[in-house]
Amino acid sequence: MTVAAHGGDIYQNQITYDFSVNTNPLPLPEILQKRMAEAAVHSNRYPQYDNVLLRERLAALYGFSTEEVVCGNGASELFVAIVHALRPKRVGILAPSFSGYAWAAQTVGAEICSIPLREENNFAMDMAQMESLCRQLDGIGLLFLANPANPVGNKMEASLLETLLDVCEKKQITVVLDECFIAFTGTEGYVSWIRKYPHLIVVRAYTKIYAIPGIRLGYLLAQKDICEKIAHQLPEWNVSVVAQRIGMDILNDSLPGWSRRKYLKNTIGLIQEEKHFLKHELTKIFGNQMKIFPSEANFLLLKTQIPLYRLLLERGILIRNCANYTGLGQDFYRIAVKGHPENVQLIEALLDIKKKGEEKRYGKH
Amino acid sequence: MTVAAHGGDIYQNQITYDFSVNTNPLPLPEILQKRMAEAAVHSNRYPQYDNVLLRERLAALYGFSTEEVVCGNGASELFVAIVHALRPKRVGILAPSFSGYAWAAQTVGAEICSIPLREENNFAMDMAQMESLCRQLDGIGLLFLANPANPVGNKMEASLLETLLDVCEKKQITVVLDECFIAFTGTEGYVSWIRKYPHLIVVRAYTKIYAIPGIRLGYLLAQKDICEKIAHQLPEWNVSVVAQRIGMDILNDSLPGWSRRKYLKNTIGLIQEEKHFLKHELTKIFGNQMKIFPSEANFLLLKTQIPLYRLLLERGILIRNCANYTGLGQDFYRIAVKGHPENVQLIEALLDIKKKGEEKRYGKH
Repeated sequence: MTVAAHGGDIYQNQITYDFSVNTNPLPLPEILQKRMAEAAVHSNRYPQYDNVLLRERLAALYGFSTEEVVCGNGASELFVAIVHALRPKRVGILAPSFSGYAWAAQTVGAEICSIPLREENNFAMDMAQMESLCRQLDGIGLLFLANPANPVGNKMEASLLETLLDVCEKKQITVVLDECFIAFTGTEGYVSWIRKYPHLIVVRAYTKIYAIPGIRLGYLLAQKDICEKIAHQLPEWNVSVVAQRIGMDILNDSLPGWSRRKYLKNTIGLIQEEKHFLKHELTKIFGNQMKIFPSEANFLLLKTQIPLYRLLLERGILIRNCANYTGLGQDFYRIAVKGHPENVQLIEALLDIKKKGEEKRYGKH
Repeated sequence: MTVAAHGGDIYQNQITYDFSVNTNPLPLPEILQKRMAEAAVHSNRYPQYDNVLLRERLAALYGFSTEEVVCGNGASELFVAIVHALRPKRVGILAPSFSGYAWAAQTVGAEICSIPLREENNFAMDMAQMESLCRQLDGIGLLFLANPANPVGNKMEASLLETLLDVCEKKQITVVLDECFIAFTGTEGYVSWIRKYPHLIVVRAYTKIYAIPGIRLGYLLAQKDICEKIAHQLPEWNVSVVAQRIGMDILNDSLPGWSRRKYLKNTIGLIQEEKHFLKHELTKIFGNQMKIFPSEANFLLLKTQIPLYRLLLERGILIRNCANYTGLGQDFYRIAVKGHPENVQLIEALLDIKKKGEEKRYGKH
């Protein structure tokens, strides 16, 4: 049994349901699927090498200028490009966090300063911890944060972020705020704060919210001088024709058969409802054998001594084993909130595990 | 009139024929077009984050191991990753060359040591110049070469390359040999030399030969330790689902309706025939008003005082204005060798220019 380094690694396992990947369970409508297929056939042409047309549309969406937007071959390319542009000696990363931040930091051999979040506090920060963090920032050139966090799903509170950013501006520390999951929360996020904080970079992506991880399309917003530095670290033609086209289609409010607003609204409604369903059922089945962490995102972090990963994989269901997250370790799992039929399949598999008493038989791993 | 920084910039101009982009004029067969479209719709899944399946196929093709192959989001991503991995202080680049080498070098602020090729020698190297170059390599950490060269189209002779690589091995200078156009020449190239020269990296791409620049798919072959260093500079999931799938399809010898061997053979035949046609017609029209440089690739470098770029653009035909190539400047143009009907259109436009005496009327630019 190989434990994947990431969610969504369907290449190593034969599976029926993939709960390890936390993308939107609502597929894009047929019109966009069709346009993706058409875009692929247009790949006999080069994409625009500096993504200007797409950047213009994104800039308009946020009320920014084109020079304040950088597009990437997925957010993962942007994390690496940020690190290459700033070459920090020390990088601050909360634990647990998405492993891509550490991957980016290692590209320049930066020392990773791991900032442990407390399980007692559901891996969220409180003001006391934030103030303590602010006193320990010396030597750190770059800090990775997420709103909402992954794999936990909690949001970053405004008062905490403000406290941190005030200090980071004074100390000239760049803060990367990963908002790749923000659209699932139904809240605005902190893009507008870039006006006030020149050291803030906000990273977003099409990947999760539009469920197109295979296409690779992320973007960041920041003040112009940072954007220029980052763009200089990116290869030319870094965004494919399919990504450029679908990226613009998704923002096109007059495309017949597509309403971004409605899609986002339906997504948020579905996630809320299904998250409630999953939490309710999981509690009913496992009671205090399982802890479910509070999440405002489209996934749930679970803690249990039941070897869930193995037991579900035997039933063709892949979940995210969180053993390789710094700050988590054994007993932690992340499940995506999917559509109702899939969620029912997950719950039925768990009921089967419970019924057969396998959660006891296997013991601790 | 904006002169594009690269060929294929169809986003700034209204054009009917694009002779600025030097991709294969033979389209991929319908079966592969169809599979590209299908692959796009599969983009609701992540690509394999480290491209192992595709790297296995490419490794098998060359008789290498999977660890000796790195896949990139186009060759352009690999040039940048190589520079990030090796962080040379000085980078040697022949002039003229593809501007992507200088773009990559600037990402780490490397000093560019421009090695001028002589127009009297048709911008090719001879042994005397190579030996002279070998004596001037001190301080250079990385050297970019191409076989065949772009925008000239001449091949790198084995005896010259051997002379250079022998010296570079002694001096621990890494040599990047760009073979993105090699398949058009009908020759093998120098991948097998990696066995003998541990500092040699050969970069290839699907882009040009399979005419899929919009998909972004390149790869490099090198010894394992260099590959590891380069892979560490790349973002995870750097190759899209469409690129991974079509990359494997193209190498699949048992895909019905597709024969890679036949496609490559037809390509080489077409290019030879059409290059001959173009050279013959150009000489007939312009005589000694135009110099055509010898090329073994799918494009021709031209030198003429006639303002070709402007005159053709007025007729809806885009060619590559080479004024921004270091080592070329004004009067140089590159045209792609396309299929016969397109080439006839180009020739007719040129005949029209000649007939109207516009090549005289405009004077020098």
